Amino acid sequence: MKLVVQDAPALKSVIDCIVSLVEEGQFEVKSDGLYLKAMDPSQISMISFSMPKTAFVEYSLLEDTKIGLDISQLSNVLSRGKKGERAELGVEEGRLVIKFFGDKHSRTFKVPLIEGGDKVHREPKIEFKNYVKIRADAIKETLKDAKLVSSHIRLNITPEAFSVDVKGENGEVKAEFQSGSTEVTEIKTETAVKATFPLQYLEDMVKATSASSIITIYLETDRPLKLEYELEGAKLAFYLAPRIETE
Amino acid sequence: MKLVVQDAPALKSVIDCIVSLVEEGQFEVKSDGLYLKAMDPSQISMISFSMPKTAFVEYSLLEDTKIGLDISQLSNVLSRGKKGERAELGVEEGRLVIKFFGDKHSRTFKVPLIEGGDKVHREPKIEFKNYVKIRADAIKETLKDAKLVSSHIRLNITPEAFSVDVKGENGEVKAEFQSGSTEVTEIKTETAVKATFPLQYLEDMVKATSASSIITIYLETDRPLKLEYELEGAKLAFYLAPRIETE
Amino acid sequence: MKLVVQDAPALKSVIDCIVSLVEEGQFEVKSDGLYLKAMDPSQISMISFSMPKTAFVEYSLLEDTKIGLDISQLSNVLSRGKKGERAELGVEEGRLVIKFFGDKHSRTFKVPLIEGGDKVHREPKIEFKNYVKIRADAIKETLKDAKLVSSHIRLNITPEAFSVDVKGENGEVKAEFQSGSTEVTEIKTETAVKATFPLQYLEDMVKATSASSIITIYLETDRPLKLEYELEGAKLAFYLAPRIETE
Repeated sequence: MKLVVQDAPALKSVIDCIVSLVEEGQFEVKSDGLYLKAMDPSQISMISFSMPKTAFVEYSLLEDTKIGLDISQLSNVLSRGKKGERAELGVEEGRLVIKFFGDKHSRTFKVPLIEGGDKVHREPKIEFKNYVKIRADAIKETLKDAKLVSSHIRLNITPEAFSVDVKGENGEVKAEFQSGSTEVTEIKTETAVKATFPLQYLEDMVKATSASSIITIYLETDRPLKLEYELEGAKLAFYLAPRIETE
Repeated sequence: MKLVVQDAPALKSVIDCIVSLVEEGQFEVKSDGLYLKAMDPSQISMISFSMPKTAFVEYSLLEDTKIGLDISQLSNVLSRGKKGERAELGVEEGRLVIKFFGDKHSRTFKVPLIEGGDKVHREPKIEFKNYVKIRADAIKETLKDAKLVSSHIRLNITPEAFSVDVKGENGEVKAEFQSGSTEVTEIKTETAVKATFPLQYLEDMVKATSASSIITIYLETDRPLKLEYELEGAKLAFYLAPRIETE
Repeated sequence: MKLVVQDAPALKSVIDCIVSLVEEGQFEVKSDGLYLKAMDPSQISMISFSMPKTAFVEYSLLEDTKIGLDISQLSNVLSRGKKGERAELGVEEGRLVIKFFGDKHSRTFKVPLIEGGDKVHREPKIEFKNYVKIRADAIKETLKDAKLVSSHIRLNITPEAFSVDVKGENGEVKAEFQSGSTEVTEIKTETAVKATFPLQYLEDMVKATSASSIITIYLETDRPLKLEYELEGAKLAFYLAPRIETE
């Protein structure tokens, strides 16, 4: 196989979206693109990643391949790619070959493949009826606000507004964005919905996005959420289990 | 009560001037402004803070109120205020309510009030006859110079110059600013005066100032100093006990 | 003696090139300039530093002098010099006096001299026939690439290219710069040569250079390398022992 992207740092950005959540992953290289489905070690969140072959300037493949990788090692290598360099991915003698190259220089890294389990991860079957579209910087700042008082955060969508609220020992935080504000470009909901989630996972999911990216959060009361965005031609979807208070 | 400042980060800057010195403080909200007098835990320094009601765009108050707060918690919350947002302070059910808001969004933080002791702090009664006015960046850099060799610093004012000198095991440092230099805009003294102070306290007192702020240092030989400046409409005065060598 | 440089931070840059490798050093102040030859504590590398008197705006000296200094202490003091200030070096009562001064202010630091051993360091007598000239940023980035997988790096010069390769437990790295690329401006070699070196030492040698500096690396198979560049009028040469694999 030979997969080439025009701009080496783009590949790094994409992998940065998953490196905080997933330690190891088995990429599937198919005729139409690159895929990864993985769960975080605690099995609270799941990621579904896809990068269509159109995101590459060259995409040659004889047959579908599976590539098991240590994601943080992959991220370390990809961080060495520089603006203006192309990045080429290949496989050679049981290792992933990552080559960054310019006109008269090249740098080649080889990293060992790892055994991927045969376990197949399926995306949760949830019919999402409600969502909010919010700028990445707004959700990032809101998570920082909430972090001051708690490790969990409650998300609320009503027809009028998207809001979060948090209660902790050191106080309370509430943030509200009305529909049609600069930050929240769209709200779709049939009713008021809410659910509580571990904050750190949400931070990890959005931290590699750029400030003006639009993030879609699908929310059902006390069900897993789905968080979705696009980056450098790749599509990222995350699922996160809610915390349900039992009384 | 309802106190509103035009620019949320301004409030953060002001509290940053005291957060390094004071752990807890009891603010007094009076009809003409906000006040705080507090000592650092080691009782070596004292701070007198005031912010007149003219520094607020809205200042409503039924009766004088005392508000005991954990200053570092207050600082953490204020650091969440963003440029372009207003900040509103209120009290509700024994908690301070801090609200940052823009056009179509708002973020509200509630932090618990704490019991303030009834101890009244009075400012030292010292008749200061000598002072120097110096740019904040010059005094900050001088403190960094001195820190290389000692944890204490001697300040000297003569009619011609403001200088500091320091002796330590690793060497000596001496810095001198002549009257009328870019850094020292004014010296007033009847005689030569000098006193030695713990360096860290001086650093904490000036670190939140902007580079071009003018700081007034009042100095009497072997007496506490008074250090004064204004910031975002607030007035800050610090007193610091000297170290007197006994032989 | 009285040695004055026009721009205080320049002196800091120069000392920063040696501070990571040498703990103590005995500078020789001669009629034509300032010299230092020193070995790192592990005796794997050697530095030869010279700064001709033309690099100073004032250079007065009655007789040749030796000045033993703690290099990291010297670096700390020099880091206090600011743009726009001159820096003056002198000796007084067994201490080095470093004075930074502007128009109406001055800052003076005195640091104790230390005993220098009488041991004379001589530069290795190697006839170098091969070298490569490479931009500082290119070699720095290459060292970072290599660091991902190993603590050692092999350098190779052929008539066509300068390359490095590294093998470690976590993978392999190979970087290649063809002659005449933006990064490698000149290659001179009669044959292919290669040798392996500890990576950290190379990093320390080049880290204080600016991105566009040209660094000359002299290389002979399995012999010490010589690495050379100029900075702020000073000339720096480093020698580094190779690691030779024994079988």
